[in-house]
Amino acid sequence: MPTEKTIAFVLYPGCTILDIVGPLQVLSTLPAFRPEYRAVVVAERLEPFETDTPLQVRASHTFADVPAPDVVVVPGGGGPTLRALTDETLLAYLRGAAPEARPTASVCTGALILGAAGLLSGRRATTHWAMLDALPEFGATPVRERWVSDGPVLTAAGVAAGIDMALHLTQELAGEEVARSVQYFIEYDPEPPLGGLDWDKAPRALGVMAGERWVRDGLGEHPLAERLVTRLKSGS
Amino acid sequence: MPTEKTIAFVLYPGCTILDIVGPLQVLSTLPAFRPEYRAVVVAERLEPFETDTPLQVRASHTFADVPAPDVVVVPGGGGPTLRALTDETLLAYLRGAAPEARPTASVCTGALILGAAGLLSGRRATTHWAMLDALPEFGATPVRERWVSDGPVLTAAGVAAGIDMALHLTQELAGEEVARSVQYFIEYDPEPPLGGLDWDKAPRALGVMAGERWVRDGLGEHPLAERLVTRLKSGS
Repeated sequence: MPTEKTIAFVLYPGCTILDIVGPLQVLSTLPAFRPEYRAVVVAERLEPFETDTPLQVRASHTFADVPAPDVVVVPGGGGPTLRALTDETLLAYLRGAAPEARPTASVCTGALILGAAGLLSGRRATTHWAMLDALPEFGATPVRERWVSDGPVLTAAGVAAGIDMALHLTQELAGEEVARSVQYFIEYDPEPPLGGLDWDKAPRALGVMAGERWVRDGLGEHPLAERLVTRLKSGS
Repeated sequence: MPTEKTIAFVLYPGCTILDIVGPLQVLSTLPAFRPEYRAVVVAERLEPFETDTPLQVRASHTFADVPAPDVVVVPGGGGPTLRALTDETLLAYLRGAAPEARPTASVCTGALILGAAGLLSGRRATTHWAMLDALPEFGATPVRERWVSDGPVLTAAGVAAGIDMALHLTQELAGEEVARSVQYFIEYDPEPPLGGLDWDKAPRALGVMAGERWVRDGLGEHPLAERLVTRLKSGS
């Protein structure tokens, strides 16, 4: 059997649950087809954390248990994700793991955490549409795509985009046939009842309001808060 | 403010995590637009449960805390979901809640749990494609659609179909504008990297094998196991 490969999903308090569960469902189905892979959920502590929903969640391993994963996936969220931008334990874990991970990936505003860890400098990246204008604060070039691959860093757009990104990653890791089999088993054949989204009609004002609230809730009076809000309001 | 409406997500050990989290993410975003709604996660006990991934989860309320929810959503899974078909505490909760709930909903093989609770008799319903042939065991007529609404019962196809069903339900509960706003915020604008699924090429033999394994793992020598396997193998 080939060398074991570990895919680590990074958990922190208050993250958006679908950001982590979408890719987790896809990539924890992978071992049924490629037994050398294993998925783990890592966190600073093995205790139940709140999420943005009433469901509480608990990691399977501590950061210390899995210092050098082969793949890293960081979920996003609202205020708690912005708060995580100043979580030095989390950032230190990512800085330690990123040099060997292929890729270090994010979903939604998880990209801002990669940015705060210094991993987006000079890279093209994406995030939730309401926070896209915040990316240059971390030296990144914002790109409006479903997922963006730049060197060892892979970023996805908001929330549900993590599923698409994870299927792309499955294809990269294990080929098209495995990716398609996973897609059949999770029956990912989307039929949004109102169809796809028309981005020309996106509620941008509501997006800026939400983004500003996430920043204020998460960072309070931290100097970074003002800089991020200025970027969101100026739209660049 | 209108009367509070409670949407209860039913948790049990070993369920497929995206089955519950997809609809949970959608329907716990609803209160931002319709504050009379609240989402809760109910289980027999408030302790961490395993899922089909390394993520552990914990409910917010016990069954006893929320005996009469306005909406019920039951996730599915593999072996543990089949085992839940004989969980009399879970079935009793559903039988107690269903008469008032609009709808009682399921995702994936959660439909079999509704069936075991006697809620699918004479109804059209759907489930994960690999278990569709098992539905007649519970008096239901299998329908190959993304979601199926029949009276007070709403069933979704496998795993990821729960997201589509929940957006449909959001539209039913709160109208098209709210459903679209939720869709923007969770950025559900799917781009499966390999496109949609071609069901003429679905791995049906693998599906029957998986279905049989789920039944054997979950029900062992229970008489229901033999009947379900026979249905899966005969394809009717």
